[in-house]
Amino acid sequence: MRNYKITIQYEGTNFSGWQRLPGDKATVQGTLETAIGEVLGYPVTIDGSGRTDAGVHATAQVANVNTSGKLDELDFLEKMNDKLPESLQLIDVELVKNTFHSRYNAKGKRYIYTIDCRDKASVFAKKYAYHYPQELDVERMKKAARVLVGTHDFTSFTDKKDHKTNTRTIHAIEIKQVGDMIEFIYEGNGFLNHMVRIITGTLLDVGTGKTDHKGLKAILDSKLRANAGAMAPSKGLRLEKVYY
Amino acid sequence: MRNYKITIQYEGTNFSGWQRLPGDKATVQGTLETAIGEVLGYPVTIDGSGRTDAGVHATAQVANVNTSGKLDELDFLEKMNDKLPESLQLIDVELVKNTFHSRYNAKGKRYIYTIDCRDKASVFAKKYAYHYPQELDVERMKKAARVLVGTHDFTSFTDKKDHKTNTRTIHAIEIKQVGDMIEFIYEGNGFLNHMVRIITGTLLDVGTGKTDHKGLKAILDSKLRANAGAMAPSKGLRLEKVYY
Repeated sequence: MRNYKITIQYEGTNFSGWQRLPGDKATVQGTLETAIGEVLGYPVTIDGSGRTDAGVHATAQVANVNTSGKLDELDFLEKMNDKLPESLQLIDVELVKNTFHSRYNAKGKRYIYTIDCRDKASVFAKKYAYHYPQELDVERMKKAARVLVGTHDFTSFTDKKDHKTNTRTIHAIEIKQVGDMIEFIYEGNGFLNHMVRIITGTLLDVGTGKTDHKGLKAILDSKLRANAGAMAPSKGLRLEKVYY
Repeated sequence: MRNYKITIQYEGTNFSGWQRLPGDKATVQGTLETAIGEVLGYPVTIDGSGRTDAGVHATAQVANVNTSGKLDELDFLEKMNDKLPESLQLIDVELVKNTFHSRYNAKGKRYIYTIDCRDKASVFAKKYAYHYPQELDVERMKKAARVLVGTHDFTSFTDKKDHKTNTRTIHAIEIKQVGDMIEFIYEGNGFLNHMVRIITGTLLDVGTGKTDHKGLKAILDSKLRANAGAMAPSKGLRLEKVYY
């Protein structure tokens, strides 16, 4: 047996998220497994670094795949990319130790959430940004974001109830204006279900003046989802990097 | 009669260029005219600042449209954008003098050509950039580009024979690395058919070392299309701005 780390880029628009689903729905995992099975000639199951929601994009998602023997990496990558749709492509294939697991060994992740602040949404950014034509106070959002950096119980910012623990560490939140766009860049050791999108929605409430850094601290401390803001839509989110 | 200047953004991927064509082909002009006709209730013909080729994008193309009476600009823009596809939207509507003509009054244009230099093409940039995974010498291209700045006969860089004159003025060519992308930014008083794409293809020959600034000068002086490089594909090109 060999173990390969594969790095995958996808536009999430037409996928029902990462995780394989029963039935006809196109998922990233399902599409990859079908293509790998065809290239290798036997069925495989792949493990991803984590699930992404329907509509979420990835610049560099990571998964690992066990094969029965050694591969010619470049040949495998080219054959895969011929089979895969334009919106889902491998960008790297690397032989790794058999003990490597894309999820268990992940030390952290970087996500980027993009807001399109123009009056009229950009035709080019429609699939990759949340059109939010409001005046946003970036300094106010930066100040509030610092409340979230560190190790906290993020129960207020997740929709799922069955996590073993809701404590995570956010290493950094950077907020920057890039032309007419605002990017929220999150780095942490892991993120709960919907956490990046709910934090972003709540920071937008800070940006418009609905709340501030003190309000955000109260929301965090309350451990109540209902106190946080709306979940920002999936299309503005992309998984940028997985750290090992 | 009133005359409106409309500013239009489009992703050219699924359009057979700007100019209305007979038959079923989707063109930018045809799609706009149909939508305007439906919103106003009478047929109109619009004049664009210039044609864009099939597959070419526009951040801000300009056209003008004559209406029988005064419009509520915001209402018109919203009704239009509801009718238009996501890939083609109005970004501005402005009442202008009856003498204004989007083509005859255009003083200049800015085009941007984007090259994706990564080994593997970015899934996100596939529709907006030409994937050209070569080592490019940016300084060498910048030096050569200076040969083209100024007023010249650009016959070597166009495919069409029936221009009244092939003399145009290029005000500036900027070449810059933006992450893994290289952008070629062209500003001039006007551009001949295919001129930006053929110049870009020829500058890529400079970047890979096939020729240099002296070679480019000889190509320009020769006034022979056959001496220039290949025409770069349309999808990497966008019309960024029209100056009045």
